[in-house]
Parts: sequence; C-alpha cells; structure tokens
Amino acid sequence: MMAKAWVLASRPNGMPTAENFRLEELPNRELADGEVRVTNRWLSVDPYMRGRMNDVKSYAPPFQLDQPMQGGAVGEVVESRSDQFKPGDMVQHMEGWRDEAVMKAEAVRPLPQLDVPPQAFLGQLGMPGMTAYVGLTRIAEVKEGDTVFVSAAAGAVGSTVVQIAKAMGCHVIGSAGGPDKCAWVQSLGADAVIDYKGDVPVVKALGEVARNGIDVYFDNVGGEHLDAALAHCRQGARFAICGMIDVYNTAEPTKLRYLPRIIATRARIQGFLVSDHVDCAAEFYRDMGGWLSDGKLKAQETVVDGLGRMPEAFLGLFQGGNTGKMLVRV
Amino acid sequence: MMAKAWVLASRPNGMPTAENFRLEELPNRELADGEVRVTNRWLSVDPYMRGRMNDVKSYAPPFQLDQPMQGGAVGEVVESRSDQFKPGDMVQHMEGWRDEAVMKAEAVRPLPQLDVPPQAFLGQLGMPGMTAYVGLTRIAEVKEGDTVFVSAAAGAVGSTVVQIAKAMGCHVIGSAGGPDKCAWVQSLGADAVIDYKGDVPVVKALGEVARNGIDVYFDNVGGEHLDAALAHCRQGARFAICGMIDVYNTAEPTKLRYLPRIIATRARIQGFLVSDHVDCAAEFYRDMGGWLSDGKLKAQETVVDGLGRMPEAFLGLFQGGNTGKMLVRV
Repeated sequence: MMAKAWVLASRPNGMPTAENFRLEELPNRELADGEVRVTNRWLSVDPYMRGRMNDVKSYAPPFQLDQPMQGGAVGEVVESRSDQFKPGDMVQHMEGWRDEAVMKAEAVRPLPQLDVPPQAFLGQLGMPGMTAYVGLTRIAEVKEGDTVFVSAAAGAVGSTVVQIAKAMGCHVIGSAGGPDKCAWVQSLGADAVIDYKGDVPVVKALGEVARNGIDVYFDNVGGEHLDAALAHCRQGARFAICGMIDVYNTAEPTKLRYLPRIIATRARIQGFLVSDHVDCAAEFYRDMGGWLSDGKLKAQETVVDGLGRMPEAFLGLFQGGNTGKMLVRV
Repeated sequence: MMAKAWVLASRPNGMPTAENFRLEELPNRELADGEVRVTNRWLSVDPYMRGRMNDVKSYAPPFQLDQPMQGGAVGEVVESRSDQFKPGDMVQHMEGWRDEAVMKAEAVRPLPQLDVPPQAFLGQLGMPGMTAYVGLTRIAEVKEGDTVFVSAAAGAVGSTVVQIAKAMGCHVIGSAGGPDKCAWVQSLGADAVIDYKGDVPVVKALGEVARNGIDVYFDNVGGEHLDAALAHCRQGARFAICGMIDVYNTAEPTKLRYLPRIIATRARIQGFLVSDHVDCAAEFYRDMGGWLSDGKLKAQETVVDGLGRMPEAFLGLFQGGNTGKMLVRV
C-alpha cells in the first residue's frame, strides 16, 4: 500500500473547507544514507496551521499548493540508514499530515524520557505545552499570587496554562465554550470559569469573577476576550499574545473599547512564538516532569481516527470541536 | 484685584465645550508658615487633562466639580514664608488653571539651571519632553539605527520625540495634520512626514515611506495610526503608548485590522506614564542640556494670551490648534 499525504489543494478564503485539501499517494522511494523511514502513529492539528495556508510570508513559510503539508507527528522508525535511529524507535518530527515520512535523521528527535503516552509529546509535553510554559513564565513573567486569565482554556495550550498557573500558585480564571468544557476546565483546578457562549458578555462575566482585576492575560483568541482583559487588567498587567483564533478566518478588524486603559495601567501586551524559545526545553521538561510526578498535570485528548479524517479534525479546531489536544490517530 | 481660577463647572460628555468651565474668584488668604504665593506667568494645557474631567478613578484623581483644576504652571514667587524661596524666584508647580497660587513650599520646585526661557519647563524641558525621553529610551528601548514612527509629531511630546530620536541616530517618520505642521516636523529633522489629513490612508502612507517597516512606534493618538504601525512593524518592534487623543472624546472602539501581526513580529505594546519615571530626571536634564548645546533641539510654542482664554487653548488641543507646546501666558 502506498503512503499517502494531505496536500493543500487551494488556499482558503476565510474559514477553510474540506475542498481546500486533497489526499494523494506519495511516490515510493528508497532511503538515502543518513535517512530514516517513520510510520506515523499520531498527527497534530494546530490553529497556527491556518496561517500557513495563506500565501503570505510570516514566521513559518506558507504551505505550497499541491504539496504535502507539514505539522507535528509522532511515529515509529521502520527503516533506518542512520546510526542514530533503529527500527522500533519512537520519534517526533514535523512531517505530519501523512502516514509515512522519509527524512534525514537530523529532522527527527527521540521522545523525551517521561512516563507519558507518546502522543503527549504533541500536546502538553510538546509544542502546545511549551507554548503555555513560555508564554506564562517568559512573556507574562507570571509570579505566585497573580490572577491569571486564559482564553480557550479547554484547548491544548489553554488547559496547560490553567494547570501550570495553578502549580505556580496563581488564582486562575479560564474561559471556554459550553458547560462540558467549562466543567472540565474547573476540574483542572481553575478557580473560576467563564462560559463565553453563555448569555453574559465576556467583559461582564470577567468583571464578576475578577473583582480585583487580572495581572496576566494569556490570549489564544483575541477579539472580545482581549477587550475584556483590557477592561479588567490591573496596574502592571502583562498580556502574552499566543494566538487570535477569533480572527484567523475573518477579515473583520478587532474592536477594542478598553484599549486606552493600557496607559493608566501601564499594561504590556507582547506577541510571542514558542519557536524563539527552544533554549528553555530542558527547563520545561524538568518542571513539567516534576508537576507530572506531583499529579498536577492532567491531559485530555480529542482523538479523530484515520488519516482520511485529518481535515475534519483541523476544521474542528475552529468550531470548538476539541477538549484538550486535538489529535489524529493513524 | 482678586486672584481667579478656572473650575470644572460640569463633566464633559464626549468633546468638552466652553460650558464645562467657569472662571471664579479665589478667596484672598494670608500665607501660613512654610507657604509661598506665586504669580503664575505660564500655564500648561495638556491632553491628559481630559481624563481628569471624567469622574473615574485613574492614575490621576478626577478634577472635583466646582473646584479649581490643576496643571503645570511656571511663575514668580511674590511672597514667601518659607526659607526655601524668596520673592523674585522663578518656580514650577502643579497649581495651574489660575493666575495666583498659594502653596506649601514642598509643592514648588525651582527651575532647573538651563539656558532656556522659563516656559520651556512646561514643554520640551518639562513633563512633555520627559515623556518623550522616557517613552523612547525606557519603554521603547530605542537604539541607533532604529526606524521610529511617531504620531502627533507636531505636538509638544511628538516634536520632542522626533528630535531626540534624530539626536540618537534613528531614522524618523512623523505624522502631523496639514502642510504647515508637516513642514515644521520636517524642519525638526524628520526623514519623512505623513499628512494624516491628506487623501492617502495612514496605513498606505506609512508603507510608502517605511519600505522596510518600523522598529519603534511612539503613540500619541491611537486609532488608525496605531493600526498602521501594526501593519508595518518589523520583528521585535516596540510600541510606547503615551496617549490616545483620538479616543479621549469618543465612545467608539478602536478598530485594529492588523493586530494579529503582533504574534508573528513578537511586537511589544506598552503603556506608560511619565510620573513613574521621576528617577530619570537627572539623566533627562543632562542629555537634553547636551542636545540643546549642540543645537539639536528646537522648541516651538503656540501661545494663547490671557487666563480668560484657557479653555479655548485646552479645546484647541483636540482640534489640532497647536504646533509645538500649547501654552497660556497670563
């Protein structure tokens, strides 16, 4: 059976649809010296991939039309012409959106030695988890006693933000959509949860649970959540801007009613990319390993089975389809 | 003749009008021990005063209804019961909006020893100048070779930003309203000037003169200038948010089309108040004194004569009525 990969068939205009993707057979090819063949077991879908579907230069190059897309993947080495890997090794790499990948060994990393299932390295112990860690510790410079507000708190990044912030001694307010997700976020330890799909506008709901304001806002969504955070931020507040999923698929501008508060509060709003912070990986695995051992981290996954359903899993990210990390099991 | 002071007669709703102010006689009173009487020569009007006319707790307490307002002032001591000051001393203080002030000596400061006219200490060598200095050096952490964009570049703060940034070896782009102001900003040394009242939207005009983007944005106005800066900011850009005069008198939200660029560029947007940075006064006077001696600083003033016209001067700030520092000469 030939290996298959999802290619970008056309660039989405606004919200992507299934028609933007096409599953293609990959040509069989022999390994060259120094290469490995990996059978992918788990594939990651992440909101940032939406940006790579546009034909604009950004931090990551755009996906090429009619070419296999990239993304996080965990798999098993099945053939190796590198002395770094042998068949049976579990590895992670960026040649996702396909069931088999042939790569130079340098593009492949062994899984860290932590007692978690392999797919955790696509979620809480992978890029999304490290995004949460970097955003809180390096960008927002969170400290014990801070009140931390995080949007998309039931997502892969947000749910880890909730747990790291709690482990660090913060008061945590999460926002999520719908009672089930809110209950899950509460079960992670959040002190208060806002249902942004409820009747109460986010700005009002946040004011009710953050009577003394917030010190840190971890933004995954932008839009009205960002405005609510501005409305309720305290003096010296720090905003770590990780994502703006609310605006990835729209041409509408963000409307901020409370932006002038940035002056009186001396608030700092900073965008960041986890890829700038690979130097903190050791620190990240050390701290996360400790919190895991202490039972302070819970992971949840929303698993979609089969490479054929990968676009569906990706589109689900924009429809609130996942609780915790959205994964495709090959 | 009795001393007079402007009191806040009513709180403005949106753009202030002359009816919000009332000139009242001040009761005569004898000096107590440790007090001085100052005849004010120059009074400052500044955009931040608009915020104090609202009844909301902010960094400065709101002006009280039917009470004299406060603001920067330069005057001459005419009577003293303090050994710190003697009649004839020129001083600065915050009991503006009036022609005579009676204060404790601690509330009064002598004018720094710099060879400039006394009213300069309400402008380039006073709070507006220090705001420019702090915003550039401490908040935006400007460095030689940066491309700096500044809005309201013909204002008291903005015109000083232009000159400090040029003195520090930056490429400077200013925005101002109308050909006269633009010509003046150019004469201060700006490498390019945008006329925001022209036919070209700011975002397009900025793109034309900042082909490689901007490193620093010094924001005095908010709104479309801020959005334009987001559209054209480079990786690692720093925004010092000093003021948002565009939105002080409106309930309309700020619409930002380019906000998501904060992530890819890792830009940092930080609000600040000069009052947090009084510790840099010595450094400020040292650097400004040097630049003055080197002929790198020019000041311009828009002078309105007579205490009776002070509300008119204040309202002029929101109508583009000033080039350089807006002052009232008593």
